[in-house]
Amino acid sequence: MAGNFPDTMRAIKKLDDAPGLNWCDAVPLPAIGPRQVLVAVTHAGICGTDRHIYEWDAWSRGRVQVGITTGHEFVGRVAAVGPAVANVQVGQRVSAEGHIGCGHCQPCRTGNGHICERVDILGIDIDGCFAQYVAVPEENVWPVHPDIPDHVAAVFDPLGNAMHTVMAAGVSGRSVLITGVGVIGLMAVTIARAAGAGRILVTDVNPARLDLARQLGADQTFLSHDEQWPGKARQATGNQGPEVLLEMSGHPAAIRQGFAALRNGGTAALLGLPSDRVSFDLANDIIFKGATVLGINGRLMFETWYQVESFLLSGRLNLEPIITHHIGLDEFQRGFQLMQAGQAIKVILEVPHQEPLPCQTPALTSAAAS
Amino acid sequence: MAGNFPDTMRAIKKLDDAPGLNWCDAVPLPAIGPRQVLVAVTHAGICGTDRHIYEWDAWSRGRVQVGITTGHEFVGRVAAVGPAVANVQVGQRVSAEGHIGCGHCQPCRTGNGHICERVDILGIDIDGCFAQYVAVPEENVWPVHPDIPDHVAAVFDPLGNAMHTVMAAGVSGRSVLITGVGVIGLMAVTIARAAGAGRILVTDVNPARLDLARQLGADQTFLSHDEQWPGKARQATGNQGPEVLLEMSGHPAAIRQGFAALRNGGTAALLGLPSDRVSFDLANDIIFKGATVLGINGRLMFETWYQVESFLLSGRLNLEPIITHHIGLDEFQRGFQLMQAGQAIKVILEVPHQEPLPCQTPALTSAAAS
Amino acid sequence: MAGNFPDTMRAIKKLDDAPGLNWCDAVPLPAIGPRQVLVAVTHAGICGTDRHIYEWDAWSRGRVQVGITTGHEFVGRVAAVGPAVANVQVGQRVSAEGHIGCGHCQPCRTGNGHICERVDILGIDIDGCFAQYVAVPEENVWPVHPDIPDHVAAVFDPLGNAMHTVMAAGVSGRSVLITGVGVIGLMAVTIARAAGAGRILVTDVNPARLDLARQLGADQTFLSHDEQWPGKARQATGNQGPEVLLEMSGHPAAIRQGFAALRNGGTAALLGLPSDRVSFDLANDIIFKGATVLGINGRLMFETWYQVESFLLSGRLNLEPIITHHIGLDEFQRGFQLMQAGQAIKVILEVPHQEPLPCQTPALTSAAAS
Amino acid sequence: MAGNFPDTMRAIKKLDDAPGLNWCDAVPLPAIGPRQVLVAVTHAGICGTDRHIYEWDAWSRGRVQVGITTGHEFVGRVAAVGPAVANVQVGQRVSAEGHIGCGHCQPCRTGNGHICERVDILGIDIDGCFAQYVAVPEENVWPVHPDIPDHVAAVFDPLGNAMHTVMAAGVSGRSVLITGVGVIGLMAVTIARAAGAGRILVTDVNPARLDLARQLGADQTFLSHDEQWPGKARQATGNQGPEVLLEMSGHPAAIRQGFAALRNGGTAALLGLPSDRVSFDLANDIIFKGATVLGINGRLMFETWYQVESFLLSGRLNLEPIITHHIGLDEFQRGFQLMQAGQAIKVILEVPHQEPLPCQTPALTSAAAS
Repeated sequence: MAGNFPDTMRAIKKLDDAPGLNWCDAVPLPAIGPRQVLVAVTHAGICGTDRHIYEWDAWSRGRVQVGITTGHEFVGRVAAVGPAVANVQVGQRVSAEGHIGCGHCQPCRTGNGHICERVDILGIDIDGCFAQYVAVPEENVWPVHPDIPDHVAAVFDPLGNAMHTVMAAGVSGRSVLITGVGVIGLMAVTIARAAGAGRILVTDVNPARLDLARQLGADQTFLSHDEQWPGKARQATGNQGPEVLLEMSGHPAAIRQGFAALRNGGTAALLGLPSDRVSFDLANDIIFKGATVLGINGRLMFETWYQVESFLLSGRLNLEPIITHHIGLDEFQRGFQLMQAGQAIKVILEVPHQEPLPCQTPALTSAAAS
Repeated sequence: MAGNFPDTMRAIKKLDDAPGLNWCDAVPLPAIGPRQVLVAVTHAGICGTDRHIYEWDAWSRGRVQVGITTGHEFVGRVAAVGPAVANVQVGQRVSAEGHIGCGHCQPCRTGNGHICERVDILGIDIDGCFAQYVAVPEENVWPVHPDIPDHVAAVFDPLGNAMHTVMAAGVSGRSVLITGVGVIGLMAVTIARAAGAGRILVTDVNPARLDLARQLGADQTFLSHDEQWPGKARQATGNQGPEVLLEMSGHPAAIRQGFAALRNGGTAALLGLPSDRVSFDLANDIIFKGATVLGINGRLMFETWYQVESFLLSGRLNLEPIITHHIGLDEFQRGFQLMQAGQAIKVILEVPHQEPLPCQTPALTSAAAS
Repeated sequence: MAGNFPDTMRAIKKLDDAPGLNWCDAVPLPAIGPRQVLVAVTHAGICGTDRHIYEWDAWSRGRVQVGITTGHEFVGRVAAVGPAVANVQVGQRVSAEGHIGCGHCQPCRTGNGHICERVDILGIDIDGCFAQYVAVPEENVWPVHPDIPDHVAAVFDPLGNAMHTVMAAGVSGRSVLITGVGVIGLMAVTIARAAGAGRILVTDVNPARLDLARQLGADQTFLSHDEQWPGKARQATGNQGPEVLLEMSGHPAAIRQGFAALRNGGTAALLGLPSDRVSFDLANDIIFKGATVLGINGRLMFETWYQVESFLLSGRLNLEPIITHHIGLDEFQRGFQLMQAGQAIKVILEVPHQEPLPCQTPALTSAAAS
Repeated sequence: MAGNFPDTMRAIKKLDDAPGLNWCDAVPLPAIGPRQVLVAVTHAGICGTDRHIYEWDAWSRGRVQVGITTGHEFVGRVAAVGPAVANVQVGQRVSAEGHIGCGHCQPCRTGNGHICERVDILGIDIDGCFAQYVAVPEENVWPVHPDIPDHVAAVFDPLGNAMHTVMAAGVSGRSVLITGVGVIGLMAVTIARAAGAGRILVTDVNPARLDLARQLGADQTFLSHDEQWPGKARQATGNQGPEVLLEMSGHPAAIRQGFAALRNGGTAALLGLPSDRVSFDLANDIIFKGATVLGINGRLMFETWYQVESFLLSGRLNLEPIITHHIGLDEFQRGFQLMQAGQAIKVILEVPHQEPLPCQTPALTSAAAS
């Protein structure tokens, strides 16, 4: 590997089969294969998934290997490229798709690597980006347009989840109900507005989140404690119910109420993950309704990424109220605590480097706005 | 009303709030409004729904009004038309769509009358076709092509359910799993074969039905008692699972196993009605899988009807093994008993008339094959 | 016919096989059949088609029958209904779909009456709305939401053309090129903006129209005399070309340049009617490009109408700069002259009535915003 | 490069700026980069494009570089792989996609490499497969299922063109008109039949081809000299016209007649390349008709390839009557002459090797039938 690299780096790792994460001061840099790229991470976002790993819940214990470096949302500079890398240059500012498909199954070869059955996810199955350096395959690298700031480029991953959900459902000119406005739900509000949605309705348990949703473009919001809300949502949509449901809570009651409110012939896109099986009225909520239900996983590679870039460059997304905190990588404990206390929405970790970062003459390498 | 009509007619009615149906010898003929059509029924099919009403189960008791004439699948001759009827003539051989939409809501005005919230269903909400005469709105009348025999025209309604399910899912060149081969499931086998499906897999509890499914075009069948069948279904489809699931059983275990077998990115069309809520693994069976789920209700008015006609005229459907019995209207008790005993698949009731039926010079009034 | 009707009415008719239209002071009121509705017209829009008939060009001479009352865009009050009309009441404020399908062919029975081969068009094939009264079938009547003003309701027809084009192409999050900004092109600009289009590019021969397009939401405009514009349009869209082309000029050069600019894999929706055959580079402009081309005719009955209503009620359309003139029905000559001089965009004819118009208690009869 | 390779190989090259192709006895083997694969070609198909190059027509002179090895349809054995190749092994029996995208533009990164603006085509822009060895990028390699014989695997490329056209148009249950039955048109007949088409109509100038089309599944055929054929095609489809047009002739008259026959609301997929601009009645043939027109280029990477594999393994395609000749590579002149004389449909060149070919234990590496 060419260049002025340190021998070791700082990283946040899951070292013990117990809650918490560990600060590691001198971890070896990731090795890169011939088709891989080493990225010097500058900014990383803390995801809800990272919090599950931090809290070491049932899902994490069953899936995540002890010893791994966590984190999968980031932006940085390309520090080195393997000898067979063709299209990425040292110095480029890049983010990366964190779903790493096997590359030769049917989903991978038909543009659906996000549903590859052997997918590895950064920071879950292989070492992630809460570190000074991360290695990713060339195919997964996404060059960041110069007009997009770092803290936004750091959250392309969840923004892509929201974008994929909104665009798969198809909101243009249709009324939309969003159940659950965590980070991705809030992103979905501003995206749906920019994507031409009709009336946008939102429900959540948290009144502050509902205020924020209205600020981002929601027309009407409902506290989920109010058991009358599905009826009110129908009233707000010509007594027919919203044409689109974007389910982003994973909560069984929200799922059931969302489907009950949905218009006959409507479309429901499901992103929120229920922690358990859900008891579901298939006959009335899907079959008689003639509903279309879409399971949403990850992001399309890379159609969704182009959409994210295009919407960002249009200036019609408002993400600033969602990205609430910028802290240093070494303050990660505080970041998780802010999330647990409900004080933060999206926390960005800024990753320090002692060496100067590789840079590039600012030739535009990504596609411009479309 | 012009013509040689009797004053009264024979009909099968639900007269008591109890199991069973009643033979009525002298019921007044239905009155027709200015835009309605009176049809002299010649053949009617007994549907599973009719059996629910016969057995007077929980659903029937909650929905069906005592006093109604049952039945909704039929063919007959137009006996009279209201004064404002424009496109239907006395003597035409016709069937009819049994979902009668309100005509002025959004679904009704956009070709989706089957999901009108105020829909009336023939033989459930209003008097049906197990009678010598039935009244239907002009808009619901379907002229039957002369090359289609009566006993087939009598089952356009369930054939339309099967057609709508198969065509909505899109089977051309894709592997298909059908869970449950009652009448509609069997119809779906022969339709899927004619519509260009790849490998067709079928599961059911009944080995005789599986034999019949193979005769109609299924490539491989599985007894649902065999708990290994979802794995075998995956093996039979390149270890990826079928690309399409047509759920026609309404049985919770079949639904769960069907979704477990479904390929990532696959499409599930749900027609079978579970009798209760279903406990469902939304995360693994729909969301992570990136599945598309379609609720199927009724038939498209009238796109599905044109498809049924076109497939029938192509000669590529095989319905004869499915229509197992032809009996007289007065033998209806035996018809229900044959169904309950599992000896019949589809039973056709032949409806006698003493007067000569109205007839027409055989000018072709329906669209020919497409 | 009940009610206080005059015996005769005022109407604008094509009385001679020559340019011009005729003011008729005492024409008999249209008779209505059992399923028809008589509407007292209050406002009518002059369409480009009316101008063709006024100028009596080749197309008009071949299609339009001398003697007809012209006009097909209008709003008014229901004055009388035939005895078999079910869902329309005297006094309702209504507009109407001007394509009157035969009602029993395959397109008509599958929600595609706009492409019925035997369609009659109001003001072209049968008497139209440049008159105090017009007769239309009940099926074609559209109740107007009380929040939509008369001069906007009068132009639902062209607004529907624009809406159908924009929604069929699918602009949400995609870059759009509109070639030709006459009335419908300008409507398409404001609709595309509200429907979530990405960058909107516009070309036209008329600089004033381009100014107006920018006011309505276009990001960049090009004079069509500038032969470099297709290259500039590609530059403005990441050097790939716009993803969507909305062709609204019918001009051969614009069509060719629009296709040349279109991105590989893009979608072109064609509404503008060339007056003659067009010499077309199918290989490079459609086949190698992998383009999708959609012929757009009329409006979907009535999906487009619901979309128009929904967008109007959202407050996100800006039509006021497009509707430039309101004049009396008797001033129609001036209306046509304003259009010919390029001084008017959309001209509304206000139709006087001496009798009080039928009115209705303001119960909401149309579906509310969705 | 490891292995027992000869120093030179035999190849058919375009050596002169003049009609004809040259037999070269001792050409250096292609060098492979780190991510490329060297394939020992065993069977190659002669394409119409190769004939254009042989005849050195206007298109060839403008596009093809003198000196190139021609040919792009083939099957063979992997002889060597570059050091960074991950998923392909020496000895595998493989074919390859001949469109080599740039790999980092938007089409390439969204599964649309076939419409990459910088695409290189094997045998046109870079050295092709009419040789003992050919080099291709790993991404383009397609492992061939062991149940598919060599002469069929050799024509995956044109079979993919036909498959892409049929599947993009969507023929299941719809009537289909195919204009032009050269090799790809004939393949489209057998594919459309297997994919569930309704009535299949075919037109061509050549009566022998029409006979073959009927043998492969066409229901009705028309000589294109018969000017009445579009009317007959409408008659054969309920007087409405076919719902789908697959244009495979590139001939202006066939294109115009095909569109004239097409049903209102129908779909036309265009694959045949006109040699010049076509004068086209956009208003009547596309716009008023509400038609959808799809430009078809290449094959989807690799969705189409999976479809081809799946249809072949189903046993429902009949290609044997289409592959008429097997000759040695050195007899290529005869192959072209057979095509020019209209005596051959598809000619397979068998490529001899003196060394034993690399082979593999027959573990299944491609996905099985779906």
